[in-house]
Amino acid sequence: MGVTSHDVARLAGVSQPTVSRALRDQAGVSAATRKKVREAARALGYVPSQAGRTLATQTTGRIGIVSAELTNPFYPTVLEPLHDALAEAGYRTILITDRGDHPVELEPLLNGSLDGVVLTTTERGSSLPYELARRGVPFVLLNRVVDGPAADEIVADNRAGAAQVAELLVSLGHRTVAAILGPECTSTGDERYQGFRERLAELGIRLDPRYVLRGPFSEANGRQGLAMLTRLRPRPTALFCGNDVIALGACNAARALGIEVPRDLTVVGFDDIPMAAWDTFALTTVRTDLGAMARTAAALLLRRIQTPDAPVSRVVLPATIVRRRTDAPPGRRDRLGVLLSAGPVVTESLDGPAPV
Amino acid sequence: MGVTSHDVARLAGVSQPTVSRALRDQAGVSAATRKKVREAARALGYVPSQAGRTLATQTTGRIGIVSAELTNPFYPTVLEPLHDALAEAGYRTILITDRGDHPVELEPLLNGSLDGVVLTTTERGSSLPYELARRGVPFVLLNRVVDGPAADEIVADNRAGAAQVAELLVSLGHRTVAAILGPECTSTGDERYQGFRERLAELGIRLDPRYVLRGPFSEANGRQGLAMLTRLRPRPTALFCGNDVIALGACNAARALGIEVPRDLTVVGFDDIPMAAWDTFALTTVRTDLGAMARTAAALLLRRIQTPDAPVSRVVLPATIVRRRTDAPPGRRDRLGVLLSAGPVVTESLDGPAPV
Repeated sequence: MGVTSHDVARLAGVSQPTVSRALRDQAGVSAATRKKVREAARALGYVPSQAGRTLATQTTGRIGIVSAELTNPFYPTVLEPLHDALAEAGYRTILITDRGDHPVELEPLLNGSLDGVVLTTTERGSSLPYELARRGVPFVLLNRVVDGPAADEIVADNRAGAAQVAELLVSLGHRTVAAILGPECTSTGDERYQGFRERLAELGIRLDPRYVLRGPFSEANGRQGLAMLTRLRPRPTALFCGNDVIALGACNAARALGIEVPRDLTVVGFDDIPMAAWDTFALTTVRTDLGAMARTAAALLLRRIQTPDAPVSRVVLPATIVRRRTDAPPGRRDRLGVLLSAGPVVTESLDGPAPV
Repeated sequence: MGVTSHDVARLAGVSQPTVSRALRDQAGVSAATRKKVREAARALGYVPSQAGRTLATQTTGRIGIVSAELTNPFYPTVLEPLHDALAEAGYRTILITDRGDHPVELEPLLNGSLDGVVLTTTERGSSLPYELARRGVPFVLLNRVVDGPAADEIVADNRAGAAQVAELLVSLGHRTVAAILGPECTSTGDERYQGFRERLAELGIRLDPRYVLRGPFSEANGRQGLAMLTRLRPRPTALFCGNDVIALGACNAARALGIEVPRDLTVVGFDDIPMAAWDTFALTTVRTDLGAMARTAAALLLRRIQTPDAPVSRVVLPATIVRRRTDAPPGRRDRLGVLLSAGPVVTESLDGPAPV
């Protein structure tokens, strides 16, 4: 692979260990020698070997981010500010994908090639946090809680956010309510379900299990889920989705099925990814500050790297409902679920007095 | 960091170099010893150090993918099959982000920590391909052509695809045509523009420079671009976008501005990312097989790693127009661009005989 530190040493007229020390800004090298070495390295186009440096300094300058489903825009949305925050602190980020059919390999996380790890897609029962803790690899959980060792974590207030969705739907007058949620084995899938179901119950609405579907956090899950829910009688008039991507899938299915949102169906998501605000969707959803989530995760991890014995932190970000154009009161329907007339808000303006 | 190869050697009752050779499946270790070493390593939870292994074997098992704008769904769409194809060949992929405000650092690409590199977002004049070639780092260009050293590359037939868009628009009857394109410094931005402009000219339509906007391959570029184009008189009746993400931004702006697609404006994209097929958009676009692009890039790179002197390959994938629901003949308009009546296809069914 061409130029070595020995070539640089020869050109600079110093020993090879001096080249290593000079390029790493270590003590014991005069400013004049350092300059001479840097000029020689530049002239030859020399780049130090990562492997040699890692053995010498015991640090790698690299942070691993374990993620999945890059086609789910939630992850790119948090990865960009996470990358930027770590880059400002002098770390390069390395994305390690963790896909269902290609589960994450432990080896690159544990072999000493990383200074720390951000876990973004870990399931509740994953053994990964245990493995990292056992080997003393600093890590932080982003948007996830696990049944594992005490660990730094940054999450949204999923229960409170989902409870606000329940309150909105009930206040609009919805009684036949459905949900398409994420996997039970994830904290986001589980907590959003619990928060929604419990608040509905407190408000006197029972969430019928036939109206609750679980699946991956994907557009396809929302699309296929809505197609199934529309076969139920009575038809649901409102749908809570476990994240925005599921909700966008439900909106796509509604379009294909001739269901008009929000006239025929209220759809609410969770996360407030940038696409939720696109005028084509204008999705009512639950916002958490994803930039703040990413920056906090970076700060927690950097502190853990510098102070391995610091007390464990759990940061919970507030979640607030953002109303756009996919929620409305329910319309009136006949026994088969056919819309008889639109609900009070619409009828006031077009169809004479509102029905009671 | 806990367990070392010396601990494994002690437990297995062999020397440390034997542990290294056994775990690397190198010659000179009996099957019985290999088994003993593996059992000891498993019992202790030993994971070999990447740095030590790299120095010993001169291979890293890692391929770097230089990408940018993960929030542009084009990249996740090709990264997943690329990751899978390289994983099948036993390589781990490492994503190195290359963002405008954080330009790609050469050092991790050149320091020997990677066996090869896939470049996906390189600009025409980038020096990166030269640097990689000079140091003998195998690389492949995906969806990009550069003014650099001869290199393996896999691209879509951008000119032919854009020419088909020109043909479609003219055959529908459009005469006032606009375009929102990607950066001139990228081959995708440049070739799609040239192919579109030249075919329009051959068909007798001049692409007025006032109706051509350039910018990043982003939703915001499409959104802001359409807002600017609607101020022109006469208003354009058809819009070609440099990629699907720009086209989706234009559709979002159309929605916000009360412009109905395709009645008031035909919108055509390029790439056929999964979102283009969502029922909410149903975007007419130019399809290239992005999975085939990713798999071919992986195959070209693996061949280059195994056979550094193999002749350079350039693979051009066909590009074919896919008509969905965002194209239609132009409506008739008054001098200010106000729609007088819809075009022939719509008027036949609703408004009596079609105007000539």
